[in-house]
Amino acid sequence: MSDESQELGITESKSHKPGEWYAEVVQKAGLADYAPMGGFIVTKPRGYALWERIQESLDGWFKQTGVDNVYFPMFIPESFLEREKDIVEGFDPEVAWVTQGGHDELEERLAVRPTSESIIAPFMADWTRSHRDLPLRLNQWCSVVRWEATETKPFFRTKEFMWQEGHTAHATDESAWEEVWTRLSQYERVYEEVLAIPVLRGKKPDHDKFPGADTTTTVEALMPDGKSVQGGTSHHLGQSFAEAFDITFVDEDERDRTAYTTSWGLSWRALGALVMTHSDDQGLVLPPTIAPTQVVIVPIWQEDTKDEVLEYSRSIADELETAGVRVELDDRDERNPGFKFNEHELNGVPLRLEIGPYEVEDEEVTLVHRPDNEESVEKREEIVDAVDTHLETIYDKLYETAAENLASNIREAESPEEIMGTIGKHGGYVKVPWCGDPACEEAIKEKVSAEIVMQPLEDQGGTTAGVPKAPDDEDATCAVCGEPADQLAYFAKSY
Amino acid sequence: MSDESQELGITESKSHKPGEWYAEVVQKAGLADYAPMGGFIVTKPRGYALWERIQESLDGWFKQTGVDNVYFPMFIPESFLEREKDIVEGFDPEVAWVTQGGHDELEERLAVRPTSESIIAPFMADWTRSHRDLPLRLNQWCSVVRWEATETKPFFRTKEFMWQEGHTAHATDESAWEEVWTRLSQYERVYEEVLAIPVLRGKKPDHDKFPGADTTTTVEALMPDGKSVQGGTSHHLGQSFAEAFDITFVDEDERDRTAYTTSWGLSWRALGALVMTHSDDQGLVLPPTIAPTQVVIVPIWQEDTKDEVLEYSRSIADELETAGVRVELDDRDERNPGFKFNEHELNGVPLRLEIGPYEVEDEEVTLVHRPDNEESVEKREEIVDAVDTHLETIYDKLYETAAENLASNIREAESPEEIMGTIGKHGGYVKVPWCGDPACEEAIKEKVSAEIVMQPLEDQGGTTAGVPKAPDDEDATCAVCGEPADQLAYFAKSY
Repeated sequence: MSDESQELGITESKSHKPGEWYAEVVQKAGLADYAPMGGFIVTKPRGYALWERIQESLDGWFKQTGVDNVYFPMFIPESFLEREKDIVEGFDPEVAWVTQGGHDELEERLAVRPTSESIIAPFMADWTRSHRDLPLRLNQWCSVVRWEATETKPFFRTKEFMWQEGHTAHATDESAWEEVWTRLSQYERVYEEVLAIPVLRGKKPDHDKFPGADTTTTVEALMPDGKSVQGGTSHHLGQSFAEAFDITFVDEDERDRTAYTTSWGLSWRALGALVMTHSDDQGLVLPPTIAPTQVVIVPIWQEDTKDEVLEYSRSIADELETAGVRVELDDRDERNPGFKFNEHELNGVPLRLEIGPYEVEDEEVTLVHRPDNEESVEKREEIVDAVDTHLETIYDKLYETAAENLASNIREAESPEEIMGTIGKHGGYVKVPWCGDPACEEAIKEKVSAEIVMQPLEDQGGTTAGVPKAPDDEDATCAVCGEPADQLAYFAKSY
Repeated sequence: MSDESQELGITESKSHKPGEWYAEVVQKAGLADYAPMGGFIVTKPRGYALWERIQESLDGWFKQTGVDNVYFPMFIPESFLEREKDIVEGFDPEVAWVTQGGHDELEERLAVRPTSESIIAPFMADWTRSHRDLPLRLNQWCSVVRWEATETKPFFRTKEFMWQEGHTAHATDESAWEEVWTRLSQYERVYEEVLAIPVLRGKKPDHDKFPGADTTTTVEALMPDGKSVQGGTSHHLGQSFAEAFDITFVDEDERDRTAYTTSWGLSWRALGALVMTHSDDQGLVLPPTIAPTQVVIVPIWQEDTKDEVLEYSRSIADELETAGVRVELDDRDERNPGFKFNEHELNGVPLRLEIGPYEVEDEEVTLVHRPDNEESVEKREEIVDAVDTHLETIYDKLYETAAENLASNIREAESPEEIMGTIGKHGGYVKVPWCGDPACEEAIKEKVSAEIVMQPLEDQGGTTAGVPKAPDDEDATCAVCGEPADQLAYFAKSY
């Protein structure tokens, strides 16, 4: 990044032009650049570091809950993709095809994986002989390609994106459901505990499921611009893939049985939601949990105080580093403190420590929170505990702001006009009784491009797993068509 | 893996049929399977866990030495690949091409990256303005594709392989050389400290450099079958990429200058070398440093002693786990101890603890080393320290065996007949004075398919960096053509 662009800072406003503002923050804070091919991005060091922290958390939780990492080829022969009809119908229009290897035409086209069920399932079939081999839980961290002809939006809409995809096989439907909830809960936890973003849990309407799935469950996050982001999905695939790829096993009574499978994925879209949720017109805002640099120390000196200020600053940096804080001492000579403040704000450092001759003299430190500039003075000798407490406070403030945005943007409606009016005026979620007919969703979608992004669930684990929650009122009628409604649905615009 | 195949064990012999033996170990120890498309493999949980440990070590060292992780697109537009002529000539014959996206033909073919210089260099140019931006050090963990029409050999020869690729830019030639050595030393360290494999450091002969490089440095490992494995390469790219992609900067005196670049990579071939070096006719052998399970506890009970044996075993497993040992208690009812011994040998668990009623009574534990079955008895109360010591001993034994194999297989020769005779009889390295003419290598290669795999270097850091070491004898003559020889070369067959 050139010095010029940093000096310019963010020129667009989040509230007036959220799309342009987002693109500017992503680039100027050094998260990503646009690649020369439309639809592709380059993930820069600060952007990739965020993805690594998400990986670290999720991967640890996966391993604690019985998941093994693997790596399957990035290509899938066309004939394999065709073995599960919903997959081929769902993904064929957006597959990138390798047709030439070296100077030769290939006999069979190879799909660059859009998702890997079709190449993983045959191996799950191979590896599953007995009930003792189940559950079989595999995951891979990789990128996938979906050739969608839409405008590039870093992390939200790119032809290649990074994700993890988990694939599991189970002896019983119940065990598969448990898996679905375990992974959805881990996705929820990433948002709530790492990204400071509250989410809603539920299922996608049946007509919007993952191709081949029985049920697609989702965590949804509400952005400040009133749109919903699908934060991660966990699919109960029933027996459709097991039947298509012959994933069978011998049970305890020596009977041949067909397995149940699940798949679940979280992509770098989580980074998009992170940027969109917390950042502001000064640039990136990051919760301390995920910030590559949690604390920056900016020493403020004149020539005659330089040595003592720097020495004092260094001792604090050392002490914080020893305590495990990700701290940076910005002692650059060629930049003044004001420039440094702006730059670290732009880059989303959560806590700034300002140290000048007065702080040295009084054995104190001045602390400034990002993004609200809340300022405190703490004693030098208590700096480690103080920093810990301030970092927690910063996290809590970010979470609460997001939680208030969510809580105040779930509204109810009783007619199509009211749904559309509410979406148009406020954005956010509109919770309605729904009859279940996709046509009722379509009627709304055509007019205000809002759709049903989520349906809350009756139960998460028992025999009614996957059944959408019913309206409180037994005589409820669909907010769109007026027919009897046995389920709730959340309309929203979405990313 | 089915029980049947485990019961069979390894049927081929390492000394008689190393190729077949290798393929069998890789599959039966659960490291990898063959994918349906020739040239591709599926990396299974135990194989991927090994790769993760290599990643963990290297990635930590990279980060300690100023490298940032990034992610660039997996596709490179054909016109970008063509910007550096050596790259396009070197890789064009083995590029996989994406020509269709969804249902449309692409206007420009996209190469699935065979290596990423051509897509990374233009961004390095963008991000490098001032000398303050240098050195710029980027790395990515990903897979690459090279469409070579050879027989698949898991980890050694596959069309898609996993690796890391580092790309750096520097203000001076000297700084670039430092980088080259830093990375080569880290590769050496992976082999010596993680994989228990000693390596030789040197350069590739000029006619065998990476396309576009000034110098390609390498670490080479000698396999027990007498062939050399290129273990990792670190390239000084001089200014060829900087010139082709315009990586320039303003120096301290405000002059425009061209940068120097390097690139360096280590692939999952390291896993191939690992398996090949230590494993035996009972299956996989792993150094404790990399073994996913370092210690397996096999309890041996009769019905009347089962409870006490299991209780004692569990307490030891808990204590070892608390101490940070990767331990597994194999308390399966359905398998007898003999079966378990074989299975854990096949899977390469370095240390087996056997616990029966006698051990319980005497408050002892029996320890058995993989692969030499060395057996010891240790006191229960000292088990944690004892296990640590035994794991270190096991590592040392593996390393020493490999080091002896290396030391006793570097031979000298003074004529083409002697080179070929030595290669034919012993394999290993043949060290000779060489005039530098590729024709002299070709003459040997044609007859015994051995080539110059490495040239030791005069110096590693100073102004003679990259200059091959001269023979001790100033009047030395080339072992092939008899002309004056100013450099040393190591011939070997290679993977």
